[in-house]
Amino acid sequence: MSSPSLKPSPALTVTTPSDREVRTERVFNASRERIWRAMTDPALVAQWWGRGNRLVIERLEVVRGGHWRFVEHAPDGVHGFEGRFREVTPPERLVQTFEWDGMPGYVVISSMTLEDLGDGRTKLVTTSLFHTTEERDGMLDSGMTEGLEQSYRALEAVLAKR
Amino acid sequence: MSSPSLKPSPALTVTTPSDREVRTERVFNASRERIWRAMTDPALVAQWWGRGNRLVIERLEVVRGGHWRFVEHAPDGVHGFEGRFREVTPPERLVQTFEWDGMPGYVVISSMTLEDLGDGRTKLVTTSLFHTTEERDGMLDSGMTEGLEQSYRALEAVLAKR
Repeated sequence: MSSPSLKPSPALTVTTPSDREVRTERVFNASRERIWRAMTDPALVAQWWGRGNRLVIERLEVVRGGHWRFVEHAPDGVHGFEGRFREVTPPERLVQTFEWDGMPGYVVISSMTLEDLGDGRTKLVTTSLFHTTEERDGMLDSGMTEGLEQSYRALEAVLAKR
Repeated sequence: MSSPSLKPSPALTVTTPSDREVRTERVFNASRERIWRAMTDPALVAQWWGRGNRLVIERLEVVRGGHWRFVEHAPDGVHGFEGRFREVTPPERLVQTFEWDGMPGYVVISSMTLEDLGDGRTKLVTTSLFHTTEERDGMLDSGMTEGLEQSYRALEAVLAKR
């Protein structure tokens, strides 16, 4: 297997702290509260998560045990994503499962932390934990971090508008 | 943390092949086809999965990508369980995720293989893969294998009836 592709953008830092994890870091010019809202209000999520593609938010129950399900209408087809919330601590921390319909039953634990930098900016840190190294590397090779950075750029635009 | 409790019954063999897995083995006096049906037909599943407790089968879509959700009405309360099918190969192999409502977002990958022993009996092998060793040991300490053996005894009774 080829080594996973870690292609950082100037804004996004990507590391692999263990053989089953991917960690990303990115700073936003917005408060934790505003980022939290953009991540949990369906009307706002629909504006950035799909990176310009139409996104249908079928479920977004931001409580411990709640489910979420998004359907992205991309040029290459329709992609469903879903999961469940493990931990919800506004405006600091969100832990949820992540599953793509194309690989049902392959579940990633996605932890997101918002860190107040004290100057109006917020550091967003994510950790994705996979069941196996192969699943992690497959996700990295599928363009996970490029897609994330595209979403984050769209999120930045949403945050700037408000 | 105390070491996980591996309490095998005379019928059920339980091992831990890696630090994130539990493997079980049990032989049934029935063909693979009959066991497969008892595991995938909602009317039959309801007779054994809940170990004598009332079981409501809310969803049981036995296809790749399909969802399942069972609600067990036990003396100590109502317990929801759910997951999604990763692999469905009748009458040989079933891989699915498993999640208990009490610990949402903690997902086990449960693989089940039915092996024809050639004499009318079938060996049922399960492997459960956890994200962490702590999750595995927590599940073992919660009585996972005792509960499984109770279910299997109820399954045996269902198989004998038919």
